[in-house]
Amino acid sequence: MTSLNDLQEKISSEVNKLSFPLHPAELYEPIKYILALGGKRMRPALLLMACDLFGGEVNKALPPALAIEVFLNFTLMHDDIIVNAPLRRGKTTVHEKWNKNVAILSGDVMLVESYKLMMQVDEHLLQKVLSIFNETAVSVCEGQQFDMEFEQRNDVHIDEYINMIRLKTAVLLGGALKIGAIIGGANENDATLLQTFGEQLGVAFQLQDDILDVYGDPEKFGKQVGGDILSNKKTFLLLKAQELADEYQSAQLNHWFSGHAFDPEEKISAVTGIYDQLNIRHQAWEAMHGYADKAFAALDAISLPDSSKQYLRGFADRLMVREN
Amino acid sequence: MTSLNDLQEKISSEVNKLSFPLHPAELYEPIKYILALGGKRMRPALLLMACDLFGGEVNKALPPALAIEVFLNFTLMHDDIIVNAPLRRGKTTVHEKWNKNVAILSGDVMLVESYKLMMQVDEHLLQKVLSIFNETAVSVCEGQQFDMEFEQRNDVHIDEYINMIRLKTAVLLGGALKIGAIIGGANENDATLLQTFGEQLGVAFQLQDDILDVYGDPEKFGKQVGGDILSNKKTFLLLKAQELADEYQSAQLNHWFSGHAFDPEEKISAVTGIYDQLNIRHQAWEAMHGYADKAFAALDAISLPDSSKQYLRGFADRLMVREN
Repeated sequence: MTSLNDLQEKISSEVNKLSFPLHPAELYEPIKYILALGGKRMRPALLLMACDLFGGEVNKALPPALAIEVFLNFTLMHDDIIVNAPLRRGKTTVHEKWNKNVAILSGDVMLVESYKLMMQVDEHLLQKVLSIFNETAVSVCEGQQFDMEFEQRNDVHIDEYINMIRLKTAVLLGGALKIGAIIGGANENDATLLQTFGEQLGVAFQLQDDILDVYGDPEKFGKQVGGDILSNKKTFLLLKAQELADEYQSAQLNHWFSGHAFDPEEKISAVTGIYDQLNIRHQAWEAMHGYADKAFAALDAISLPDSSKQYLRGFADRLMVREN
Repeated sequence: MTSLNDLQEKISSEVNKLSFPLHPAELYEPIKYILALGGKRMRPALLLMACDLFGGEVNKALPPALAIEVFLNFTLMHDDIIVNAPLRRGKTTVHEKWNKNVAILSGDVMLVESYKLMMQVDEHLLQKVLSIFNETAVSVCEGQQFDMEFEQRNDVHIDEYINMIRLKTAVLLGGALKIGAIIGGANENDATLLQTFGEQLGVAFQLQDDILDVYGDPEKFGKQVGGDILSNKKTFLLLKAQELADEYQSAQLNHWFSGHAFDPEEKISAVTGIYDQLNIRHQAWEAMHGYADKAFAALDAISLPDSSKQYLRGFADRLMVREN
């Protein structure tokens, strides 16, 4: 089995080879620009691995894998407009470098380009592969919309939050794995199990992100610890704290998340203090492992020899103990 | 053969039956809203007619026809953001009624929904139909981008303008007709001829729009006569006038299109005066008929009895003598 690292490099090199027309320049240059910003190419690499896992020909899965990467970058281009982000992977975002209209239209054509790539599968798989892709794409849009909506709401329930991160980020990983499995020759049941593995792992990964934001090692985390607290983000930790808080703690949380300006260090330390009182880190850790367990259970149920699944199990294990 | 009118009504009634999830409400309500604004449903109706023309089962072409209508409305939703339009069909645009982020994301999911509908064809046609749809979608984005680009340029050539209107508006009509023909059982050659018919007719239609904007009967035109002149739009008429103008006329055109504020009536009358001196109306009319002739030639070449093609010929004839 080719290592994930090698597959990621294969994707990177193939992404660089993607060619687009020269004109209109402002339609296609932003696509080349955002794709060249890099990224881990994790989802497309896992699509290839899923194909390999079932004994498929990895090269046949390459265009759909690229489709996933182009699709991901389409969502990033539009999300960056939506949240008004100045930077993406440390570089100026497309809507800042060009303008919002360019980013809207380039994103649109990227979505079409991702369909063009996704279509490059054997004809008998076309209907199935595109159906998975359609559902995935719709889910990602729904997740993004829920995320926007939650910013305006003060009554977001944890279940809704989990569903939002599942739709916004985990479904794409699950979809990529299922498509890879189908191309690799997996039966419907195994492909769906692998999809579940990806989706549940994706949720666990996102919960871990929430934990690391508060409890990560500042030396290793790579982002500002407490960033979610400063931006009043409704993470699992905050929602759980709001759920468990007594009257006094609740008032404290309302105070710190009231939208007023506070000294950043003071705010982070006060909120973290409340989280500690309520044992939120452990609660989040338990929830994360609950989803990871579901992921492992799905992986276990796939009708492949254990040795074949060992690589993905190891990958998931490493993800769960990451520090950044 | 079912009349175009009946097919348009069929589409309208089927558009009303399209169902979308309830949540997230701000993702799906704008879709229902824009689709309910109406419109002539001309492209999807012609897709059905193309299917009928080749003896196909019209109901089989219904989901792809709806795909074309959903796709069209996706482009309108995003275009309205891009040009900052307050109104669409006399009603508040989506980005004004909700906000730009909602319009971006709802548009994105509409594009995916249009693929979902387009996929509902017999499996052996899937690859072909989707390929046409992909090319069409890319062209529409390219056309829109050229249109944006041309607003900033002062050296737009007439050929570029024709290519822009072809991509932005005519290709979708051509694509709809080709997809309908393929579903109806047409061979590749006939389907491509019908596509050409639609595309060339679409260009002719757009040129006629340019003419009517200046020379239409104010009682019948429905929009303000001279609107393109007031908004400094680079139409065929203006580009042709710039091409043919002598030094004095050229200076006059530069003056009126310099971006300064003028009395509207005075500006329209002065520019129309220059157009008249240069015989621009006739030039535009000749160009329009050149494209219409190409459309008719393509229609003539289709291997169907003349009687079958009579309806489309009549339709195109009526389009070319419209007054609004």
